[in-house]
Amino acid sequence: MSGTKTTHAPMAPGGTVGILGGGQLGRMLALAAARLGLKTHIYCDDADAPAFQVSAAHTVGKFEDRDALAAFAKACDAVTLEFENVPADCVDHVARFAPTYPSARALAITQDRFDEKSFVQSIGLTTPRFVKIDSAADATGWLKDFGGRGVLKTRRFGYDGKGQAKPNNADEAAAAFESFKSVPSILEALIDFDFEASVIAARGRDGSFAAYDPPENHHENHILRCSAVPGRLTAKQCDLAKEIARTIALALDYVGVFAVELFVLKDGALLVNEIAPRVHNSGHWTIEACAVSQFEQHIRAVCGWPLGDPARHADAVMENIIGAEAEAWENYARRSGALHLYGKRTARAGRKMGHFTQLSPLTRR
Amino acid sequence: MSGTKTTHAPMAPGGTVGILGGGQLGRMLALAAARLGLKTHIYCDDADAPAFQVSAAHTVGKFEDRDALAAFAKACDAVTLEFENVPADCVDHVARFAPTYPSARALAITQDRFDEKSFVQSIGLTTPRFVKIDSAADATGWLKDFGGRGVLKTRRFGYDGKGQAKPNNADEAAAAFESFKSVPSILEALIDFDFEASVIAARGRDGSFAAYDPPENHHENHILRCSAVPGRLTAKQCDLAKEIARTIALALDYVGVFAVELFVLKDGALLVNEIAPRVHNSGHWTIEACAVSQFEQHIRAVCGWPLGDPARHADAVMENIIGAEAEAWENYARRSGALHLYGKRTARAGRKMGHFTQLSPLTRR
Repeated sequence: MSGTKTTHAPMAPGGTVGILGGGQLGRMLALAAARLGLKTHIYCDDADAPAFQVSAAHTVGKFEDRDALAAFAKACDAVTLEFENVPADCVDHVARFAPTYPSARALAITQDRFDEKSFVQSIGLTTPRFVKIDSAADATGWLKDFGGRGVLKTRRFGYDGKGQAKPNNADEAAAAFESFKSVPSILEALIDFDFEASVIAARGRDGSFAAYDPPENHHENHILRCSAVPGRLTAKQCDLAKEIARTIALALDYVGVFAVELFVLKDGALLVNEIAPRVHNSGHWTIEACAVSQFEQHIRAVCGWPLGDPARHADAVMENIIGAEAEAWENYARRSGALHLYGKRTARAGRKMGHFTQLSPLTRR
Repeated sequence: MSGTKTTHAPMAPGGTVGILGGGQLGRMLALAAARLGLKTHIYCDDADAPAFQVSAAHTVGKFEDRDALAAFAKACDAVTLEFENVPADCVDHVARFAPTYPSARALAITQDRFDEKSFVQSIGLTTPRFVKIDSAADATGWLKDFGGRGVLKTRRFGYDGKGQAKPNNADEAAAAFESFKSVPSILEALIDFDFEASVIAARGRDGSFAAYDPPENHHENHILRCSAVPGRLTAKQCDLAKEIARTIALALDYVGVFAVELFVLKDGALLVNEIAPRVHNSGHWTIEACAVSQFEQHIRAVCGWPLGDPARHADAVMENIIGAEAEAWENYARRSGALHLYGKRTARAGRKMGHFTQLSPLTRR
């Protein structure tokens, strides 16, 4: 599967990249595409999408609107997405009219926590223990089997802690499952990890592979608070993280940038927590610390360009600006570092409004 | 004049910056504004302007169209320009409807080579010797006085060597003046410089000042070929260049980013060649080598934000991609470094199509 070739020629400067989804990731993808002389066309159902402000064209449409999707895809030279919950059949439909990356298959697998974890195990990688939960009885029964501790998660559509619960007893497990409206879920073992990390990597249309140095990540209320690179991972763990990413990319025949969230255990082992089939919040520091950011890397992959060098030229710490924190934009603007604000009109609690990256001289890879 | 205060409040994220001119400088200004959560509105007479592709709104209009300019300015929270040949009275008109920086006065002085050089000398700085040329007889007479060598330049509308000639004798001087359609011109002494340099600096609405390290510049056919920082300037020359910029900014009561092109003489002296009242090609390396680029710095100044730290975190070499060189975009994409393409449809000879910046570890300031 290595070196999978496609017949599409690289997109020349002046071409149009379509992006499904118009949030901050779409916005930063559009900014990266612009730097390469490419135009973007954003497809999003929100008429006030942040990415619209920086794109040459946009379509306000639903992911179920086949005609609007077809017209959009025909206006693009390649299509990608910024949002992993784009329905896989929407991607299949778009792919009939324009080269589309990542594939519907890669998306379908990573959209479902049970399928994703089963896939990860099937290719020889390690995840926390998990089981399917299809009923309140499953939830109470398996929680007992897990020793009375675990994380209940919906199989689909979760992000930033949404669709997750940590039941402490059988009643709470049943109640949590019902609070999820009894949708198909999984129960995952609670991992007593040392810290969290991630690896952001890319695979080109030609099968080439490039991985950034893996950052250490800290979460607050299930939302990423900050990423630091280098983090506490050893050189050996960094190499292992990149190898995990390579194995996943190859098995998914993936094209584009993706992230693998990892648990780093006290004994040094790395467990795969989750795969994000898109650019990732924990890779925002690549904008300043690398010649080619994760956003440009994704555009390069999707457009059939050579992948860029993922080497860091600096150490970096990225912190998110969340909800009302954005009101202090003048304080961020006064600090030495790179401020990014996403052009969102309202600062709801927990909403990612921007981020701030500080570089320092390169210590070690 | 230091600390000049204006009554305009800083523009909050979500506001709209108007930009007169839609070329690559407007495009990179728009990308920088987007990073800060600001929208841009581009005003340009070219319906295919590169900056339109990355802006939330645009107006196709002429700089003489008072109604279109008024409507544009009313839609913006502040207005600036990317192009020094915007007529000063256009800027005066726009300023009636929105805070506009730099001022019409600063623009008027720097648009006219005679007025600019007279101004520079009036504030105690040194330029090459120059005289007004208003007739063919002036041209031949003064060339003789200059020892038979000199550069004839139109007073207005010159860039990248356009409107310049190096006559070798009286007949050539008269012919050159007539080839300029006898417009008001100047004759400048030919300077036997060691190398060329520039300093890019910014002044905020509050009178604060920040200067980037001055690069050494190389030209080919009157077009910038590359800029390197650090160049051959000594630490003392770097400080002097920044002081020259500060003196000019203060005397012009300037707001925004500007560049001062310098001749570095064999005896170490710095001569002011020209002032560009805008972001400058020789400052493109600041995108990668500084936390706040010249483009973001200009947006910050115009919007009343605190100026960013101009410190470099790396050494940098920037080379322009000119005319047909852009056809080799895949070769540039393969090199390790930051590729920028400007989204221009046709690659005319001498047209700036993009640039490429390579960083290396910081050696010295």
